[in-house]
Amino acid sequence: MKGKKKVGIADTTFARYDMGAAAIDELRKHASVEIERYTVPGIKDLPVAAKILFERGCDIVMALGMPGPTPLDKTCAHEASLGLIFTQILVSKHIIEVFVHEDEAKDERELAMLADRRTREHAQNVIKLLFKPEMLRKEAGMGMRQGFEDAGPLRL
Amino acid sequence: MKGKKKVGIADTTFARYDMGAAAIDELRKHASVEIERYTVPGIKDLPVAAKILFERGCDIVMALGMPGPTPLDKTCAHEASLGLIFTQILVSKHIIEVFVHEDEAKDERELAMLADRRTREHAQNVIKLLFKPEMLRKEAGMGMRQGFEDAGPLRL
Amino acid sequence: MKGKKKVGIADTTFARYDMGAAAIDELRKHASVEIERYTVPGIKDLPVAAKILFERGCDIVMALGMPGPTPLDKTCAHEASLGLIFTQILVSKHIIEVFVHEDEAKDERELAMLADRRTREHAQNVIKLLFKPEMLRKEAGMGMRQGFEDAGPLRL
Amino acid sequence: MKGKKKVGIADTTFARYDMGAAAIDELRKHASVEIERYTVPGIKDLPVAAKILFERGCDIVMALGMPGPTPLDKTCAHEASLGLIFTQILVSKHIIEVFVHEDEAKDERELAMLADRRTREHAQNVIKLLFKPEMLRKEAGMGMRQGFEDAGPLRL
Amino acid sequence: MKGKKKVGIADTTFARYDMGAAAIDELRKHASVEIERYTVPGIKDLPVAAKILFERGCDIVMALGMPGPTPLDKTCAHEASLGLIFTQILVSKHIIEVFVHEDEAKDERELAMLADRRTREHAQNVIKLLFKPEMLRKEAGMGMRQGFEDAGPLRL
Repeated sequence: MKGKKKVGIADTTFARYDMGAAAIDELRKHASVEIERYTVPGIKDLPVAAKILFERGCDIVMALGMPGPTPLDKTCAHEASLGLIFTQILVSKHIIEVFVHEDEAKDERELAMLADRRTREHAQNVIKLLFKPEMLRKEAGMGMRQGFEDAGPLRL
Repeated sequence: MKGKKKVGIADTTFARYDMGAAAIDELRKHASVEIERYTVPGIKDLPVAAKILFERGCDIVMALGMPGPTPLDKTCAHEASLGLIFTQILVSKHIIEVFVHEDEAKDERELAMLADRRTREHAQNVIKLLFKPEMLRKEAGMGMRQGFEDAGPLRL
Repeated sequence: MKGKKKVGIADTTFARYDMGAAAIDELRKHASVEIERYTVPGIKDLPVAAKILFERGCDIVMALGMPGPTPLDKTCAHEASLGLIFTQILVSKHIIEVFVHEDEAKDERELAMLADRRTREHAQNVIKLLFKPEMLRKEAGMGMRQGFEDAGPLRL
Repeated sequence: MKGKKKVGIADTTFARYDMGAAAIDELRKHASVEIERYTVPGIKDLPVAAKILFERGCDIVMALGMPGPTPLDKTCAHEASLGLIFTQILVSKHIIEVFVHEDEAKDERELAMLADRRTREHAQNVIKLLFKPEMLRKEAGMGMRQGFEDAGPLRL
Repeated sequence: MKGKKKVGIADTTFARYDMGAAAIDELRKHASVEIERYTVPGIKDLPVAAKILFERGCDIVMALGMPGPTPLDKTCAHEASLGLIFTQILVSKHIIEVFVHEDEAKDERELAMLADRRTREHAQNVIKLLFKPEMLRKEAGMGMRQGFEDAGPLRL
């Protein structure tokens, strides 16, 4: 018998906001899932962390990170993202990447709020992917955004 | 006995136009195929969605998305595209990527029309790949475009 | 008994010149090979087309395409090239990529001539790879170019 | 019976500081581990060096390098990083990448100090990943940096 | 009984200097190895050439090429490099990439000298990797360069 769904939370010590805690709090609000958390130094360590979490039985993984603002940071984020995508293709399971770039907000307070909100809204996406795919289908093409206001569907 | 061909439709809640509905409508106009739709949050979730659709028996997948206009959005689209290409190589089946970039049109109305038209013209390509490869061969080198006017063959 | 060598020709409807026809014409001039042609919509569909051609018994594949001039087109070409390289690594067989970028020529007529000439010169490379590797070795370091004048070896 | 944990040290002759020696010194200070060192010419040789170290029984690998300051050097670093990420995904084990870019410091002395300090702080991360994952979890979201002052958690 | 080590030499007709001949000459000066040479049209054909050379029993491969100076050439080199790295990861054997970019030298004579010297110095690295890994370890962090003067270790 297959028990509860298990969600992996891969996060970093590099991030300046505890996205992992926000993700776990939000997941627990919406569903009864098993959770395994795995903290690594930086975003480039997230792909293998996710791979390891899948090998420990996770059905889906959230990969949480806060890339810095320099060109080198942007390259790191790009490399991490490619690694996360290839890991998903190899294991045929979703990794929901939640990256908050330091230059997306105008000050530290806004950055923290963005990190919190985006993480929580993506945690809700994780719940939908696991349990309510029909809700995602209803939102198809609706211009949903995580952390910012939804763009909404195009006006004709 | 192998039954009907099955087409996977992977689309996103991030998109601002219901490309999935347009694709399904167009496919149904031209052929009798089984269709499975799978909606994910964003374009970076499309590669694994396509992989999962193939594992559920799809013969071909359409990956539909609308990347935003910022450099970060462009990088996301690039990452998604690479993931879609590697998924195809792994499973030896086509994924027809239909991406409509927000900065390809001058206003929201034109963007919606572009998204609709490009999706439908690529749905026709899906039909050709599945049932009428000889039609594609006849169009080889003809400068075909999806969503915009065809460029046509070079004038000599 | 292994019969004739088989060459796959993967080309696109996006291209504005019938590079596939040029390739086949040139191959037939120089050798007796079996040829299978597979036309897809765009260059990003070429990697899986090549993979499928190898699965249908091809010993080598030509991947023919004409990327457009915009930054987005350049990114597509880059993605396609990476896909072609990974396909080769997976199957341990050559794919000769023949891409003609729209901004490599000053007008449509020159572009068509470039597409024709580059395709044909690469078709000759295919023949050499299949049947006359010693001819390539003789040209090693000679500054050979396809479609343009050879650069030639460095003058000392 | 599984004996001591084994740490692989992959470093380069291109680097201008003996990061390998610093890593080994720091590891020995904090834990009793077996160490295997493998020196290659440049950073692009690190991914396969790490793969080989894993095949020789390493549980984790440190990949140490000092990319130069030119755009070409940056591209090499990007390629090496992607290779390191894919190696990790294939073997499901961590490679801690420690790259120190030549343009991160204002003079040679500062560069050496940065290389030494970042290597040592990442060696401590290796120890944590192997033996004290709960310490990393406690530092999650704390804005840890290696080689420079920690950024710290966001102020609200 | 395992006989002599075998070195693969993959080179191109695009290059403007016979790097393959230089590599073979240098290898023969320093060791008794079996050599197999495989010439392909351009640098993007090198990854699969290396893969094929490994399948023919090579223990290590040198991939020799001379990318042109344009942005498109730089992209080709990047793609080739990624392919070479992934090939190494797949087979767990080294490919020593020796690329000489046309814009690294101020004239044709200097370019030829650079191509010759870099190739030979990397051939010596091949010998060290195969037979004298302890020599590379001694040079770790010494700022070694191939083709140009060594940068040397950092001054403190």
